[in-house]
Amino acid sequence: MKVHIIGLGLIGGSFALGLKKAFPEVEISGSDASEEHLLKAQELKLIDCAATLEEAKDADVVIIAVPVDVAKKVALQVLDVVGNNTLIFDAGSTKAGLCEAIAAHPNRRNFLAAHPIAGTEFSGPEAAVETLFLQKTNIICEVEKTAFKLQERALEIFQKLGMRIRYMDPASHDRHIAYVSHLSHISSFMLGKTVLQKEQNEKDIFDLAGSGFASTVRLAKSSPAMWTPIFQQNKNNILETLEEYINNLSEFRELLKNDNFQEVFREMERTNHIKTILNGIN
Amino acid sequence: MKVHIIGLGLIGGSFALGLKKAFPEVEISGSDASEEHLLKAQELKLIDCAATLEEAKDADVVIIAVPVDVAKKVALQVLDVVGNNTLIFDAGSTKAGLCEAIAAHPNRRNFLAAHPIAGTEFSGPEAAVETLFLQKTNIICEVEKTAFKLQERALEIFQKLGMRIRYMDPASHDRHIAYVSHLSHISSFMLGKTVLQKEQNEKDIFDLAGSGFASTVRLAKSSPAMWTPIFQQNKNNILETLEEYINNLSEFRELLKNDNFQEVFREMERTNHIKTILNGIN
Repeated sequence: MKVHIIGLGLIGGSFALGLKKAFPEVEISGSDASEEHLLKAQELKLIDCAATLEEAKDADVVIIAVPVDVAKKVALQVLDVVGNNTLIFDAGSTKAGLCEAIAAHPNRRNFLAAHPIAGTEFSGPEAAVETLFLQKTNIICEVEKTAFKLQERALEIFQKLGMRIRYMDPASHDRHIAYVSHLSHISSFMLGKTVLQKEQNEKDIFDLAGSGFASTVRLAKSSPAMWTPIFQQNKNNILETLEEYINNLSEFRELLKNDNFQEVFREMERTNHIKTILNGIN
Repeated sequence: MKVHIIGLGLIGGSFALGLKKAFPEVEISGSDASEEHLLKAQELKLIDCAATLEEAKDADVVIIAVPVDVAKKVALQVLDVVGNNTLIFDAGSTKAGLCEAIAAHPNRRNFLAAHPIAGTEFSGPEAAVETLFLQKTNIICEVEKTAFKLQERALEIFQKLGMRIRYMDPASHDRHIAYVSHLSHISSFMLGKTVLQKEQNEKDIFDLAGSGFASTVRLAKSSPAMWTPIFQQNKNNILETLEEYINNLSEFRELLKNDNFQEVFREMERTNHIKTILNGIN
């Protein structure tokens, strides 16, 4: 199997490592907008060689793992050059814009729109992890628009990497993922900002931060280059979630101000219920 | 060494386990407002026996590990009955109110006000962990008000449990801890609430939640009985941090609304700086 990966960061690099483990005979070529990342990916043996899209157009699989704004353009470029037998899939955190951009392309059936819910707060080729996708959910959108034999190839790959598959339409994907992923990143970035503003002259204070703070602020280490276009593409859904989050925080503030600690207790007690729901997420 | 622990939950129970490991000859008695917790603590062999305060008043050490509202009353009760040779310390997440409450007590010198920055989102005797305090920061307030020989005893215990010691006045402690601990809990509880509200009819959706969401919402599993009195006692500092957090979120929302994605990028880039600061917190 010949695979070409466009974008050799955390996600593209982890696909490379996972595929090498799952398919020992695989040949992987790759490209990256950053010369430095491309060299690093070769040095780390994520890929066997560098290749241009023209050189890689007869690959069995082309994986697009670039920021979501670039992904649209790249998807169209790849669709323009591949033949009938090449599966293309992406891994972006927004799906409606991409699906719309490629909808009318004559080679649409070569493409599978995917979103593996997997990642860490780190980025670049060095962040790649062989088991990143193990037991993670992979959301596939508009599966019916992909050629049947290419669906099969994709599912075999996802299965061998240990993913659980869920099917969803692009609009629902973007709406739900705004709540369970995008909002978490904003809450974490702004928490980090608030504490940094206050404590900028007192570095020692971070000595006092425990694992609770580290956990809530972990996502504030994420890559702005990856996240800015996600926020841009999913702006409307995110604005809705952010509005509700700010309202809830403001209501909680009023309860504190008014010394309504009975209701403060109940608010927390009701949300404790999230324990049972989160069982199973690691 | 005879130790008496009042409150046999996560913190009290972890002190019991840690002390048994560090001081094999220690005898530990305990009490808890909940009969169920007291029995569970005996069953789990956290303590050697149950004891009343009257029975335990000649212990070498009395540890107070109860919610911070109860801690004030309990501290005064213990101070009332102990002799010169008993060290009392607490482990609460607010310090100004407690230090003020005991300031005028004739036995003030028996007391050491402490706050180990350690915990998990779980509670009760079953949540106790032998190594909970290993390599964690323990903030000691008003150390000069504790008898010298009792300071020494406390430091030996904290050292054997693997804690790093920091000294701070109670008002500074409460102000800083509002930022690096209390605010994280509110942001997490309200994030959990926001997502639960939206997704209440779509349980499947949590299948889509990845480790990022789990990380930011982890603290929403924390005990309301422990946290309500903390928010109550540190109300003013928390209101200030919450105000700043809501302002930062609102500003971020405006940037999104106005399509100012250049500034959205810069906001995240500036906060990324937290990476270097958080190195070392696990």
